[in-house]
Amino acid sequence: MNQPLSPDPTLRHRSHEVTLTLRRPDGSACADTDVFVEQTRHAFAFGNIGFDFIGLANADTAESPGAVFGGADPEAAERLVDLWLDVFNTATLPFYWSGFEPVRGEPLTERTLTAARWFRDRGVSLKGHPLAWHTLAPTWLLDASTAEVEQVLRARIRREVAAFGGLVDTWDAINELVIMPVFDNEEQQNAITRLCRQLGRIPMARLAFEEARAADPGVRLVLNDFNMSTAYECLIEGVLEAGIRVDAIGLQSHMHQGYWGEERTLEVLERFARYGLPLHLSETTLLSGDLMPAEIEDLNDHQVPSWPSTPEGEERQADELVRHYRTLLSHPSVEAITYWGLTDLGSWLGAPAGLVRADGTPKPAYEALHRLVKQEWWMEPTHLRTDSEGRVKVRGWAGNYRLSVQSATATFDLGPDSSRADVTVAP
Amino acid sequence: MNQPLSPDPTLRHRSHEVTLTLRRPDGSACADTDVFVEQTRHAFAFGNIGFDFIGLANADTAESPGAVFGGADPEAAERLVDLWLDVFNTATLPFYWSGFEPVRGEPLTERTLTAARWFRDRGVSLKGHPLAWHTLAPTWLLDASTAEVEQVLRARIRREVAAFGGLVDTWDAINELVIMPVFDNEEQQNAITRLCRQLGRIPMARLAFEEARAADPGVRLVLNDFNMSTAYECLIEGVLEAGIRVDAIGLQSHMHQGYWGEERTLEVLERFARYGLPLHLSETTLLSGDLMPAEIEDLNDHQVPSWPSTPEGEERQADELVRHYRTLLSHPSVEAITYWGLTDLGSWLGAPAGLVRADGTPKPAYEALHRLVKQEWWMEPTHLRTDSEGRVKVRGWAGNYRLSVQSATATFDLGPDSSRADVTVAP
Repeated sequence: MNQPLSPDPTLRHRSHEVTLTLRRPDGSACADTDVFVEQTRHAFAFGNIGFDFIGLANADTAESPGAVFGGADPEAAERLVDLWLDVFNTATLPFYWSGFEPVRGEPLTERTLTAARWFRDRGVSLKGHPLAWHTLAPTWLLDASTAEVEQVLRARIRREVAAFGGLVDTWDAINELVIMPVFDNEEQQNAITRLCRQLGRIPMARLAFEEARAADPGVRLVLNDFNMSTAYECLIEGVLEAGIRVDAIGLQSHMHQGYWGEERTLEVLERFARYGLPLHLSETTLLSGDLMPAEIEDLNDHQVPSWPSTPEGEERQADELVRHYRTLLSHPSVEAITYWGLTDLGSWLGAPAGLVRADGTPKPAYEALHRLVKQEWWMEPTHLRTDSEGRVKVRGWAGNYRLSVQSATATFDLGPDSSRADVTVAP
Repeated sequence: MNQPLSPDPTLRHRSHEVTLTLRRPDGSACADTDVFVEQTRHAFAFGNIGFDFIGLANADTAESPGAVFGGADPEAAERLVDLWLDVFNTATLPFYWSGFEPVRGEPLTERTLTAARWFRDRGVSLKGHPLAWHTLAPTWLLDASTAEVEQVLRARIRREVAAFGGLVDTWDAINELVIMPVFDNEEQQNAITRLCRQLGRIPMARLAFEEARAADPGVRLVLNDFNMSTAYECLIEGVLEAGIRVDAIGLQSHMHQGYWGEERTLEVLERFARYGLPLHLSETTLLSGDLMPAEIEDLNDHQVPSWPSTPEGEERQADELVRHYRTLLSHPSVEAITYWGLTDLGSWLGAPAGLVRADGTPKPAYEALHRLVKQEWWMEPTHLRTDSEGRVKVRGWAGNYRLSVQSATATFDLGPDSSRADVTVAP
């Protein structure tokens, strides 16, 4: 087992230094020259769901078919675009099977590809969620034999991963595997639980990871769960011991019942960092209104007619969000945080979980997160000067940078492996 | 995965029929002859701990050294022998490492062998508990490097299994592995948690099972835990998927906080029967006094000055015990139940968990269990008569039987594989 990493509240592990040697296209050094450096992107994945923008990307009108995933209507989404892009660099796209393929053989591939390209064109990385999951499995699968369910699931995984090759670079290969074979929903039976119960959890994980990997060896595959208990540890150990290659461990953290706090958050991170794999906080929610009662076990069971965002709730949400992001970034194993929703409009369970109110105005939590991501953790645009050999030292947050020398520009990256680099500036 | 078995309250799966052909030593059939048949033993393992009799077997006096495991003193034990042997056929012997080897290199092998032979001579099967466990690991291991801890643990497992070959046929190969790497006891650090944290749970299981199996390929090896949650399921699936051969799944059920009830018991059995392995209810406790408060998480944390057995508690215990044993036997996967202690004298936590009061008189639960094991689930001694070819049909509970024809006797077994057998009766 790899040596686990330890948290560092100074975030020293998130910034890096590089010595660049600047040259002109003819190879001559840009000696004793003024340089202007700007950060353009975080390496850290500040994610959010991209569900709201599928209709917008597809130029839906109110009458358009296929707006199956809830969220903001295209008109409202239009007003959210800048807010989203100002903070986030990674979008989770929905591949819930029953919604993605409501009629067998008619997946919403084109519609979702259009949304994926819309994000890609705006510099956003993409994650697909999820390839295998019992919840929201299609009802048309219920009549199939278990052998057929397996074959159809395998084919669906290959199909989605192949179709989104070059666009979606990270997938939740399998979601909520801890509960999958014992998931009990009398009203809504599903064929995936039946398959998992027959195969066992680890063969089920192998199925999902191996099909996805075969369809695109370059993608990053995540094992994702809401279960933060020892059960998930035991499952992870079994999956890894079985030789299944997992690229990251996904930890859901829908905090509808209250903020975890620093202590619990670090305890969870420490336990799951033990496996030496990157951690993705894949589904993060903090409410700006009443909390859900603690006795609710399945969050889906809490149905209230109205769940407003309140002024006190918004202050609390902002405070907790800052504390949570600080805690998560302090742990070197964490490489992604996906907040679950930008707006309260059409949010999961109707909860005031967004960073933006239903009327489109930002809550304090949005402003606070923007300050962290684009000020405190962002290199201020900086004027530097090269030495007599064209060298300049840059220190900043892991990410992508642009530099300009007079009217010429170039790009470079800062990361754990960068220490020196040659950069050619060109007009 | 094997097809799971389903419960049957009629216990039809526990009785079998055989057609015997009785012959004399010269080969002639015992035609038209009276036969008397008696059951001598249950195939089902009705177990209890044998800790109380180690001193007795070793003819300890009050001054004897080495009486490290608590329980009744030899004089009190003398009065318990018949009560124990009248109901139970399987004894769990203690191999808690810190007690078994209080001084490094000086294990209590001889003393424990004497106890094992004492039981064997009384027709009792033996189980060893446990080979690998973090609790009660020796303090002299604390200073060892983790590599040395592993090597010493491996050697200890081989040593114990080899020394008790032919006597102890079942071992808890590893105990409480779910919590092992994250077990947290500030006051009492232990080297096994450290080892397990470094190796991971599944390599730790492999270590224990493979060393024990190598030392004696004939023993039955149990994975034992108190954790009845999904975590244990995930662990079992990981262990099996890793190719580790497990002979039975051990389920502790110390019910100090209250009887599980039929519904929960069956739910637990169904979940763990899914793996097609026999289930051992390895540590069963029901109190005949106040229950431990539900908020206690580690039972060891509950310390009370006095914890009496009460008349109402004794009636409740008897009722619950009968219901529990009936429920457990109704499930075909269950092949062993070990009650955890005969007497309240020196019982774990001082709880009134025994079937016999501290003064040596049986509680109603003892009488009730005796009635089940030796009356309701026991074939009454029966007179039968062979046909003209010496054949006689016997139906009874799985187990061992003796038959007599005049002054000649023979033995036979009833089990799932018995349908017909030739028996030679001899004086």
